[in-house]
Amino acid sequence: MADEKYDLVVVGGGPAGYAAAIRAGQLGKKVACVEMDRAGGTCLNWGCIPSKALLKSAELINSIKKSEEFGISVGSVDYDFSKIIQRSRGVADQMAKGIEFLFKKNKVDYIVGKAHVDDAKTVSVVDGDSKGKKLKTDNILLATGCRARRLPFLPTDPERIMTSREALVMKKQPKSVAIIGSGAIGVEFAYFLNAFGTDVTILEVMPQLVPVEDEEIAKTLGREFKKQGIKTELEVQVKDAELTKDGVKLVYTKKGKDVTMEVDAVIQAVGVVAFLDNTVEPSLNLKTDRDYLVVDDSYRTNVAGIYAAGDIIGPPWLAHVATFEAVQAVNGIFGASKPRRVKNFPGATYCNPQIASTGVTEKKAKELKLDFKVGKFPFVASGKAVAGAHSEGFVKLISDSKTGEILGAHIIGRDATELITEYCLAMEMEGTIDEIHGTIHAHPTLSEALAEAAAATHDEAIHI
Amino acid sequence: MADEKYDLVVVGGGPAGYAAAIRAGQLGKKVACVEMDRAGGTCLNWGCIPSKALLKSAELINSIKKSEEFGISVGSVDYDFSKIIQRSRGVADQMAKGIEFLFKKNKVDYIVGKAHVDDAKTVSVVDGDSKGKKLKTDNILLATGCRARRLPFLPTDPERIMTSREALVMKKQPKSVAIIGSGAIGVEFAYFLNAFGTDVTILEVMPQLVPVEDEEIAKTLGREFKKQGIKTELEVQVKDAELTKDGVKLVYTKKGKDVTMEVDAVIQAVGVVAFLDNTVEPSLNLKTDRDYLVVDDSYRTNVAGIYAAGDIIGPPWLAHVATFEAVQAVNGIFGASKPRRVKNFPGATYCNPQIASTGVTEKKAKELKLDFKVGKFPFVASGKAVAGAHSEGFVKLISDSKTGEILGAHIIGRDATELITEYCLAMEMEGTIDEIHGTIHAHPTLSEALAEAAAATHDEAIHI
Repeated sequence: MADEKYDLVVVGGGPAGYAAAIRAGQLGKKVACVEMDRAGGTCLNWGCIPSKALLKSAELINSIKKSEEFGISVGSVDYDFSKIIQRSRGVADQMAKGIEFLFKKNKVDYIVGKAHVDDAKTVSVVDGDSKGKKLKTDNILLATGCRARRLPFLPTDPERIMTSREALVMKKQPKSVAIIGSGAIGVEFAYFLNAFGTDVTILEVMPQLVPVEDEEIAKTLGREFKKQGIKTELEVQVKDAELTKDGVKLVYTKKGKDVTMEVDAVIQAVGVVAFLDNTVEPSLNLKTDRDYLVVDDSYRTNVAGIYAAGDIIGPPWLAHVATFEAVQAVNGIFGASKPRRVKNFPGATYCNPQIASTGVTEKKAKELKLDFKVGKFPFVASGKAVAGAHSEGFVKLISDSKTGEILGAHIIGRDATELITEYCLAMEMEGTIDEIHGTIHAHPTLSEALAEAAAATHDEAIHI
Repeated sequence: MADEKYDLVVVGGGPAGYAAAIRAGQLGKKVACVEMDRAGGTCLNWGCIPSKALLKSAELINSIKKSEEFGISVGSVDYDFSKIIQRSRGVADQMAKGIEFLFKKNKVDYIVGKAHVDDAKTVSVVDGDSKGKKLKTDNILLATGCRARRLPFLPTDPERIMTSREALVMKKQPKSVAIIGSGAIGVEFAYFLNAFGTDVTILEVMPQLVPVEDEEIAKTLGREFKKQGIKTELEVQVKDAELTKDGVKLVYTKKGKDVTMEVDAVIQAVGVVAFLDNTVEPSLNLKTDRDYLVVDDSYRTNVAGIYAAGDIIGPPWLAHVATFEAVQAVNGIFGASKPRRVKNFPGATYCNPQIASTGVTEKKAKELKLDFKVGKFPFVASGKAVAGAHSEGFVKLISDSKTGEILGAHIIGRDATELITEYCLAMEMEGTIDEIHGTIHAHPTLSEALAEAAAATHDEAIHI
């Protein structure tokens, strides 16, 4: 078979890669997407999506436990852990098939296999059904992403010492688990497993849970987790682990002293590392910074014709940021529009209560010596939250004292991850707290709390 | 006791009245709020808020019925109807107490009793504990609202022929119910009662359910209601009803023929009528239009010193619109800011799937011969919706072909009432579909569907 010539070859089929390939297809370009695992990448197959399916089951069983409050009584409550995992795999499979359908629809050549960039015009497929195929192309977009970081001193045992990847397909629910790291992934697994009765302990090296979030948000999460029975140890450093007959013996340092705990399993949720292993011919000398590819404002690497987007170009390692970057990169490559770099983006954490945020935290605003005001509104003053019996949490809005523009926003509570969007749009449009306050929000909704937080900045909230 | 002199007397303590009183308090004004029932008015005590509590119970039992899908099995499922009603009363009571607390906090004199406006400077209390009290004031704001409309030919029996008010405190769950009218209130009661096994038939005079909503939205709701077992009869006119030994015999006309049905109870949800009975001295000659008070852009009636806001000044009869108007009116009265009239506002319907909308429907856009484009995105293509097993529904965005500004937006699906806020803010800020598309939405969220609908306008959505 003759070598094929593409306008673009995308390496990686995750939120950056598949979006890039589809966008190129929309632009009428001849495009291939080479993915070594499955369309959708980590996010869709081993991250955001299946975890949300697990969390749905967790939310449901937690609701059922409280059903008496709502006038509903159930007899026995039981669950089938393997069925819960199985459903989440089904959801991931359905979504991956969706991407494969979109590839067809947009005439993207979808190639399952490991890619190797031989030079700026050639991508080889080095394993899989298409092994040996050489793709000639005018442009290459590297979107290989990241993979879960592993603590080097932990023993290897995919059933007892997991990353999120193994945890998503746990065969057996552990009776007890230590979760190392309390970022989004750590606290989501904590919520999920605790809902089904696993004894959960979170071990966090930093002085607060969800370390990237606002301090007050973290404290509220800590309180809510405590109510739920999730244990948290802050400012502790895991230093050793040993496989025992039935589980894991973990040693961590707390205030200078060693503490030993025995658990059935350990989940390490300690961030990600760049994934580019043997993907690019070394002699191309692609410029990296701490393993991440360095790109300019048009997502160009230092090698002409090779672009990169998504997690592989560095933080914040978020699927929605990756997709945005990839689409911008493709728009730039083909002159559809001037590519934009990421300015504002939300973070979203799906434990319960949910956390969502964008922009600076209050602490950061102080550090930066910004001239800012804070507006806050608690969900306990929201009729919708009280009617739905989820009145924990609050909205905190940080705005510029002079212009009223939003500098940061932090929400903890039901549906926080959906609610944050309003503030994201406001930031994108350089909107002010007055514009948010002046927008009529439907009653009764949780979103009213966002308008009230804006109003509260000037003590004009009606409901507090 | 000497007559007291106020800066403002507010007549009515609903979403317009209480917000007005609190706002005046914030401005340091001496203000009284006279309410004949309870702080919070219809919305909080007999509408939006208690109904949301009922709907929460309905959503929960519907989730429990589907729990097997999520790997959870329950034994028997039972419910206590009176406990469900009781919880909703508790929620209303808690929120009403909240308003009473806010009155105190903002130094609002809260007077429970029927008000009578003697003249532009005097409000008398004509019943209740404060009967006989005369309030002297510089300004009066009428916020008396509306009450449920009753079909005049229906017999009187608060247990079998209800409006929403009686239905909210039903003593006994009817085995079968006919709901006349399929606006928000009608379909919410339909969803609630059907969830608990009542045989529900909706009778709607118009050719579609939820007549103010977009046609496609209405059709989707009809399909979902059918799946749930809710019966709907469109283009039928109720013409007679008769109380029988155990229930009600209802006669309606369908395609020119009379149809008789027997049900345990009837709920009439056929809109509202202005409520101003004997509140204003007739010789003041307050100008009305079809019973609604006529106001200018500063919410002034034709009588100097008398203002009006909320449902009593006419459609759209929405709590959030009422609150907005009332706050604007007060800002105007005391010169805090130039009052604004309502321009854009959302509508919200809390059955399941939820419906939310703002601006024109597609049909209306055609009638007005607007130059518009439509962008649509179905929730079945949303990872979050699939993970949560609520992938029914879609987002439909109507924008100006030339400027990209939003003319109308329609959402049916989970959390539609929260999601619509993003579009409301965009409309308020005269944002375009490009600005919505260009805003990074958190993944995975339902809100991504709003960005995708914007992108779909130009065939640039990634996931369809």
